[in-house]
Amino acid sequence: MTKPADLRKASREVRAVFDDIKQTRNVADVNNFWKYLARDPALLRRTWESVKATMAPGELDPLVKEMIYLAVSVTNGCAYCIASHTAAARKAGMSEAMFGELMAVVGMANETNRLANGYRVPIDPAFGG
Amino acid sequence: MTKPADLRKASREVRAVFDDIKQTRNVADVNNFWKYLARDPALLRRTWESVKATMAPGELDPLVKEMIYLAVSVTNGCAYCIASHTAAARKAGMSEAMFGELMAVVGMANETNRLANGYRVPIDPAFGG
Amino acid sequence: MTKPADLRKASREVRAVFDDIKQTRNVADVNNFWKYLARDPALLRRTWESVKATMAPGELDPLVKEMIYLAVSVTNGCAYCIASHTAAARKAGMSEAMFGELMAVVGMANETNRLANGYRVPIDPAFGG
Amino acid sequence: MTKPADLRKASREVRAVFDDIKQTRNVADVNNFWKYLARDPALLRRTWESVKATMAPGELDPLVKEMIYLAVSVTNGCAYCIASHTAAARKAGMSEAMFGELMAVVGMANETNRLANGYRVPIDPAFGG
Amino acid sequence: MTKPADLRKASREVRAVFDDIKQTRNVADVNNFWKYLARDPALLRRTWESVKATMAPGELDPLVKEMIYLAVSVTNGCAYCIASHTAAARKAGMSEAMFGELMAVVGMANETNRLANGYRVPIDPAFGG
Amino acid sequence: MTKPADLRKASREVRAVFDDIKQTRNVADVNNFWKYLARDPALLRRTWESVKATMAPGELDPLVKEMIYLAVSVTNGCAYCIASHTAAARKAGMSEAMFGELMAVVGMANETNRLANGYRVPIDPAFGG
Repeated sequence: MTKPADLRKASREVRAVFDDIKQTRNVADVNNFWKYLARDPALLRRTWESVKATMAPGELDPLVKEMIYLAVSVTNGCAYCIASHTAAARKAGMSEAMFGELMAVVGMANETNRLANGYRVPIDPAFGG
Repeated sequence: MTKPADLRKASREVRAVFDDIKQTRNVADVNNFWKYLARDPALLRRTWESVKATMAPGELDPLVKEMIYLAVSVTNGCAYCIASHTAAARKAGMSEAMFGELMAVVGMANETNRLANGYRVPIDPAFGG
Repeated sequence: MTKPADLRKASREVRAVFDDIKQTRNVADVNNFWKYLARDPALLRRTWESVKATMAPGELDPLVKEMIYLAVSVTNGCAYCIASHTAAARKAGMSEAMFGELMAVVGMANETNRLANGYRVPIDPAFGG
Repeated sequence: MTKPADLRKASREVRAVFDDIKQTRNVADVNNFWKYLARDPALLRRTWESVKATMAPGELDPLVKEMIYLAVSVTNGCAYCIASHTAAARKAGMSEAMFGELMAVVGMANETNRLANGYRVPIDPAFGG
Repeated sequence: MTKPADLRKASREVRAVFDDIKQTRNVADVNNFWKYLARDPALLRRTWESVKATMAPGELDPLVKEMIYLAVSVTNGCAYCIASHTAAARKAGMSEAMFGELMAVVGMANETNRLANGYRVPIDPAFGG
Repeated sequence: MTKPADLRKASREVRAVFDDIKQTRNVADVNNFWKYLARDPALLRRTWESVKATMAPGELDPLVKEMIYLAVSVTNGCAYCIASHTAAARKAGMSEAMFGELMAVVGMANETNRLANGYRVPIDPAFGG
């Protein structure tokens, strides 16, 4: 269970998803995440459709969305996700200076989250407490 | 140990930090987080100085920084931080539509982080794997 | 501190635990987890006794218990635990299709946990809120 | 931002999702989670469609899926999700004895995940290490 | 499923555990955690025996052990555990100044853990990398 | 973005921080963490100043502080931090027996945190509930 799907035997459903990923992202091949998810074609399709809808430009631009994705992945310590979304954020325009500021905010938030927990700070009435 | 510092007895150091928070943020009073941290004046000062430097405008604008802070807090499930940074992000310009998109990305990232873990996806060479 | 216990010098207590693991699981050797824990014989014994009692058949069958163990390990991102409990779950009967459904539920739960956090949803009275 | 959507003004899209939830689950009203998500109709619809597909009977029966959902929610400490999915699991047939065994496995997995981390146990070759 | 066990009907096994907790800790009553766990007498007994063995004085004194317990609970954001182990640590001798230093270390560790993740820092050879 | 800073081009600010780390810790070179953080000199300096102040001897001695740091890192599953702070704790005097007791407490706390979550235990009035 540590292998990607056998892509030579990929069903039409899997190939359709892969084609849509390549076209949407303008890439020659899909990355490992999708090749492993292809072991469950229904999960592959649902996940891709959600990712596609969620990451499309909207009120937030794609760079901001990629940096938010990276902030979550760094907080959770997901090595694969940190690697792939650092690449995606850079492709979307994240500079080295932006990366440094992003990491500073992520680190600070993880610190103050625990200070609020440990000091058992009650929510201010102004914030709905 | 479930109380804020006794502010009537606040030291000069604590009052100086509180004054700087009020002036920097243009608010009449500091929120509960700082009143509880004031039980340890050195920790209060270090934390405020880091927050002030980290959240100042830079390559990323304050709204983006507040949304990243909120993304981390939601991932960690820190109720106080979610309440206070939702308020801060709104004050910095987060609309209801932006909030919805932010939550969608945070939810999706938390989902795909676990799919990458469970499928034990190896990092692609292109991403430094 | 990155080594397993020196098993040639293993005490009688450690060997007794190892023998019980092998007999209970019908395996020729114990896996690395136990060899490392053997550095602290008392912790080894307590941990094995808890695992043995917890994972024994009861109202839930061993396959369900192994899948729950895997769900937790994937959520926490413990690479060792994901590898060993994926193997254990397969040995207990988890098919590829079951694995896909398990991952889908784990991913979905991690997503909706954060949506509930971010939207600050109050517990319904019917659920004890 | 601490309120559910104003359901008197709910769009046709929101009402269609609510009706599908009620019919699928055979309940008179949807729970708070959906009323809050309704603030973002597109997110509401995507989330419900994923939940509906993921939690439907398959290779794993609905009770097992609900217990996996609960195991993740307990690990993450999501109070809303613990309350709502304990209710859902009981409705799907979880007895008090099953709940006790579920909690025992969740607790044990969270413990051994950290022992594996702390002892830096390398993955056995047999598990793909 | 949101209630403690009905202690008027407590079995001999439950009462024996409660008596041992009271005697070991020299308290008049057990705290809520044990009253809820009593719904599953076998889990109650196993958990108490592990806690009793783990928290007993050894190479580390009880105060250090209680502070470590609190550091984990604050990191995980477990409100019940933060409240009960803050009380236990104070009873074991934690002063306000010690609490402040403990929180400072916990906050800092949570911050630098994420900086190490985000910068993808490889383990130094001297540390076993 | 998977590289340390180019130290041949290190600014005066970076070199000053490195010199202070070496002098404070009495080591010949800084470890990888600092070489990577050096990509953002301001973040490097702020982080080092916080670590230096937080880890200095105070009411808690350096060994206790290192063990608390390790407890958090093990809970979060940060591989780099576990490796570097295990080394630091040993240098500060942590014996093999102390390490075993530390891991036992960390494992137990992670287990009981989830039991408290799952059983939805209300905070006792004596603990501020």
